[in-house]
Amino acid sequence: MTVEPRIESSPEAAAEAARARIRSGAFRGPTSGLAPGMVQGNLAILPAEAAGEFLQFCQQNPKPCPVIGMSSPGDPMLPMLGRDIDIRTDVPRYRVWRGGTVVEEPVDIHAHWRDDLVAFLLGCSFSFEEALIAGGLRIRHIDQGRNVPMYKTSVATSPAGRFAGPLVVSMRPFRAADAIRAIQITTRFPAVHGAPVHFGDPTEIGISDIGRPDYGEAVEIRSGEVPVFWACGVTPQAVVEAAKLPFCITHAPGCMLITDIRNSTLAVM
Amino acid sequence: MTVEPRIESSPEAAAEAARARIRSGAFRGPTSGLAPGMVQGNLAILPAEAAGEFLQFCQQNPKPCPVIGMSSPGDPMLPMLGRDIDIRTDVPRYRVWRGGTVVEEPVDIHAHWRDDLVAFLLGCSFSFEEALIAGGLRIRHIDQGRNVPMYKTSVATSPAGRFAGPLVVSMRPFRAADAIRAIQITTRFPAVHGAPVHFGDPTEIGISDIGRPDYGEAVEIRSGEVPVFWACGVTPQAVVEAAKLPFCITHAPGCMLITDIRNSTLAVM
Repeated sequence: MTVEPRIESSPEAAAEAARARIRSGAFRGPTSGLAPGMVQGNLAILPAEAAGEFLQFCQQNPKPCPVIGMSSPGDPMLPMLGRDIDIRTDVPRYRVWRGGTVVEEPVDIHAHWRDDLVAFLLGCSFSFEEALIAGGLRIRHIDQGRNVPMYKTSVATSPAGRFAGPLVVSMRPFRAADAIRAIQITTRFPAVHGAPVHFGDPTEIGISDIGRPDYGEAVEIRSGEVPVFWACGVTPQAVVEAAKLPFCITHAPGCMLITDIRNSTLAVM
Repeated sequence: MTVEPRIESSPEAAAEAARARIRSGAFRGPTSGLAPGMVQGNLAILPAEAAGEFLQFCQQNPKPCPVIGMSSPGDPMLPMLGRDIDIRTDVPRYRVWRGGTVVEEPVDIHAHWRDDLVAFLLGCSFSFEEALIAGGLRIRHIDQGRNVPMYKTSVATSPAGRFAGPLVVSMRPFRAADAIRAIQITTRFPAVHGAPVHFGDPTEIGISDIGRPDYGEAVEIRSGEVPVFWACGVTPQAVVEAAKLPFCITHAPGCMLITDIRNSTLAVM
């Protein structure tokens, strides 16, 4: 007599189970820690008339804006990202924007769906953080139970039409030897921001006060540690916000789409 | 009618031509810049009774002591490193050591050769510097026409028998973005010291005055630059010197063995 495997017996099964709970409304919170090993992504849904320009922006700025997948106009399904993914229901919480302002935070966007909408999923640092942890590194904001600190920089992105603005970076402090290892590990993952863009003196990239991030929460930088800065998926969100589109939808902070893609498959080597 | 190619028409031919000039006595200087693209290496020749222990030391300390090739006891030829390489004649200048002291700097070691000698060739930073330059980075000590600055550190090597001592590092200053790129590039070359071991504060690895290297010459570190430290092939030389062997032979500083191995073949990816 054999024992049936539980549905969460594989990372893929755990991803599918998590999406089912989200779709049913049973889970409405941040997705950090759900379906370990699987890619989670940042969501941007734009009208088709702006989508081409946004895709060009992403193509020109691959470090902050790595496109993992996108939908056809009006099609809410994302088969390249996983089985039966419906972008209208499978994210725990959304933000609906009008003219650059959040007007609603629904848990389902059926009521907002239109035939001209295009959904973009952009890579997120959860994937490379998992690789850093697997590599034996400690990540301060996770150890401190905080959101990662993020900063607007003085580094301009390469603009495309109405999409333009500063690069936003996330920061993780490391001792030098660990920073070198972190650079090596994240280099393997260009689809989720890749290698850092800077380390050391924050003022060199226009960050005047490392203790006051523009997004997220500050973390301790201990003696002998240097801040290491990665391009951040908040960049495209800030750019979309600044573009003041008449209408668009994003995920609510921390409430990502969970895919059927394993993080390990994003490693280029 | 075809034109015959010159003998230096390939990097391999240039290596062979350089060795021929060296063997004939026509060239007796530093080998930097000779046979671009080809691996040059640090030489250590030890009696067989010490060679096993030295090989163990190298095995335990691969970053400073990457073994590119070694000879059989008493055999002066190194066929795995190139065509017709005779280690008794093919280095421009040698150092003969007795009891830890240089007693002679000959251009040929036929008179010193013994049936129990084992030759080791260890990877050298020339190979990764070539890759850095090909990657568009500027190397300060090359730009300034100086020898690379090298420092004894407070980091101990893993000892093997009589071989023990501090890690020696070489230093190259870079801006942070270039340092990140340099880490990526040198990671590809573990056989020639690989990724850096440290960057930033020199005191963390026991370097009290960055302006006063233990070997080589100081270079300028400009505002916005950080010193980046790589494990250095002087480490095994310092360790062999400290072991005060009754007899051994090394290359004279800068006077390396030129092999028939292309630098590019050392890249692990």
